[in-house]
Amino acid sequence: MAVKTIEWRSDSVRMIDQRLLPTREVVRTYRDYKGVADAIRTMVVRGAPAIGVAAAMGVALGIKGFAGKRAETRFNTVAKALRATRPTAVNLAWALERMERVLKENLSLDPAHLFRRMREEALAIYREDIEANRALGRFGAELLPDPCTVLTHCNAGALATAGYGTALGIVRAARESGRKVSVYADETRPFLQGSRLTAWELRKDRIPVTVIADNMAATVLRGGRVNCVIVGTDRTAANGDVANKIGTYPLAVMAHRHGVPFYVAAPLSSIDLECPSGERIPIEERSPREIAEFAGKQVTPKGVNIFNPAFDVTPAELVTAIITERGVAYPPYGESLRALKERA
Amino acid sequence: MAVKTIEWRSDSVRMIDQRLLPTREVVRTYRDYKGVADAIRTMVVRGAPAIGVAAAMGVALGIKGFAGKRAETRFNTVAKALRATRPTAVNLAWALERMERVLKENLSLDPAHLFRRMREEALAIYREDIEANRALGRFGAELLPDPCTVLTHCNAGALATAGYGTALGIVRAARESGRKVSVYADETRPFLQGSRLTAWELRKDRIPVTVIADNMAATVLRGGRVNCVIVGTDRTAANGDVANKIGTYPLAVMAHRHGVPFYVAAPLSSIDLECPSGERIPIEERSPREIAEFAGKQVTPKGVNIFNPAFDVTPAELVTAIITERGVAYPPYGESLRALKERA
Repeated sequence: MAVKTIEWRSDSVRMIDQRLLPTREVVRTYRDYKGVADAIRTMVVRGAPAIGVAAAMGVALGIKGFAGKRAETRFNTVAKALRATRPTAVNLAWALERMERVLKENLSLDPAHLFRRMREEALAIYREDIEANRALGRFGAELLPDPCTVLTHCNAGALATAGYGTALGIVRAARESGRKVSVYADETRPFLQGSRLTAWELRKDRIPVTVIADNMAATVLRGGRVNCVIVGTDRTAANGDVANKIGTYPLAVMAHRHGVPFYVAAPLSSIDLECPSGERIPIEERSPREIAEFAGKQVTPKGVNIFNPAFDVTPAELVTAIITERGVAYPPYGESLRALKERA
Repeated sequence: MAVKTIEWRSDSVRMIDQRLLPTREVVRTYRDYKGVADAIRTMVVRGAPAIGVAAAMGVALGIKGFAGKRAETRFNTVAKALRATRPTAVNLAWALERMERVLKENLSLDPAHLFRRMREEALAIYREDIEANRALGRFGAELLPDPCTVLTHCNAGALATAGYGTALGIVRAARESGRKVSVYADETRPFLQGSRLTAWELRKDRIPVTVIADNMAATVLRGGRVNCVIVGTDRTAANGDVANKIGTYPLAVMAHRHGVPFYVAAPLSSIDLECPSGERIPIEERSPREIAEFAGKQVTPKGVNIFNPAFDVTPAELVTAIITERGVAYPPYGESLRALKERA
């Protein structure tokens, strides 16, 4: 894997600082859960699956040296700090629940063995995420023509996951299957995940990529320049409503208007059957500074109001298919998502 | 007028450098037509009506010292240089044609008198632009409720015109009529006319403004946060198709989806009856650097492709009304625009 988003090494968590890409490749090392929580909040690491993996590793670091009742109390403190970082991606809550289950089954272990077991679970989440992406990628690739040009938004790539990627995993799998594939990437304001991260990791894999401003996607779709849109998701509700990076909803509307299939790459860990519809998904608002400043330089006049929602919800009726590691779900999603998620 | 976009002073043209706003207010002085052409091309000055005024003043500077046949030849050279700067805004061609008519009627004058006459015509274009904006603003303001929140894209304000503005002229007129009015401004990538220019001039007039990234407009529209959308236009075709800053088309689609009126503020100088429909409007593509770099800092990996169309076309059926200085045009625009434009 050319890109190492997150790694467990010598009882610390290492992450590439995604705020500095593509111009600087700096790897940060975290030895306690507070550092991991900070890294998630400040977007050193981002992308729903990667956040889930980071949180699991954070729990393992946090639990080190504890056992029994004290480990349970400690877990609550650690999980609270991690849960407070970012509200929209369900993978974070999903990973914390999974780590909690393992903890409760192993409260009788001594601190060293409990830590080893928790670390093992975090690493399992890490490995399973990559495997899920590869399986999801193969299912998705079968939907693509050859040659194929894909429009994507934000970064649902190796950098958003333990590796390989969800939306970009489909692109990679299409290439591995011998298809000729290229990508249009929305730059994705305000954090520029598209121009900075998607372009960077596709360049590393020598997959042709063209960057556009978000407001140019409608022109690309109208001009017949792409065969499909593929995006990731931070949380998909039981009815198929898709929360994803701000700007996904208008992209889906434009794709629908121009008859272009709109696919969502959704590992099962990002599908929240407890959440009936998109209206119930909490939408994070982030700091005004993300829009008011760039690289420390002021771009809006001082004192101007800023509204900075980080996600939006695409209604299920605009989604052509939802691609998971267990297969492709089609409407009605209420049934198809549950069937895939509950399959043994 | 708090904002001086462009001014004729002592036989030179002065413009505020819009590339440096809002952090630096630098006024540039141009003494020949080549400087004016450069200023238009590099976007020291931008906005269709302002470009028209700048071109007229550029012709006046260019014609100085010429008369008779030599003035005609000189005009061709000057007009060619100015016309080559930016293809989409029809105001540029419109201003050049008007200056050419005056030139042809006055070829018998000596150089000093011909220059004076041409200067007079350029200043008439300047004054008439402000008057047109004020009249347009009054017609538009009548369409707005009280209180009213307007969503706008790019900058169709004082900085895009000789003064007062088209879309923002309507906002100003609404305020002058006693209405309580506030604005959401798309930041407008890649040149950030919204966060830099619209926010700056509204702040100067103490009109409340909230800046969003372009991809957040759909969330603002869905959330019922605005009463209408108002944008300017670089060229409106005879059938009512509207060319305007890239991102206007998806904004119109989203406004239509959410039942929000979509108004175009179009001085008659920007309505091109010779152009039957939007398909015939030339769309400028600008330098990849506008997207590859942000405030002089590289944001995309080196060697990545960029697609940077500067405008898009909104089909007439998405436009609720087109507001001119002679009144408001409603569909079918083929009739209503011609009636307004040809009225004595």
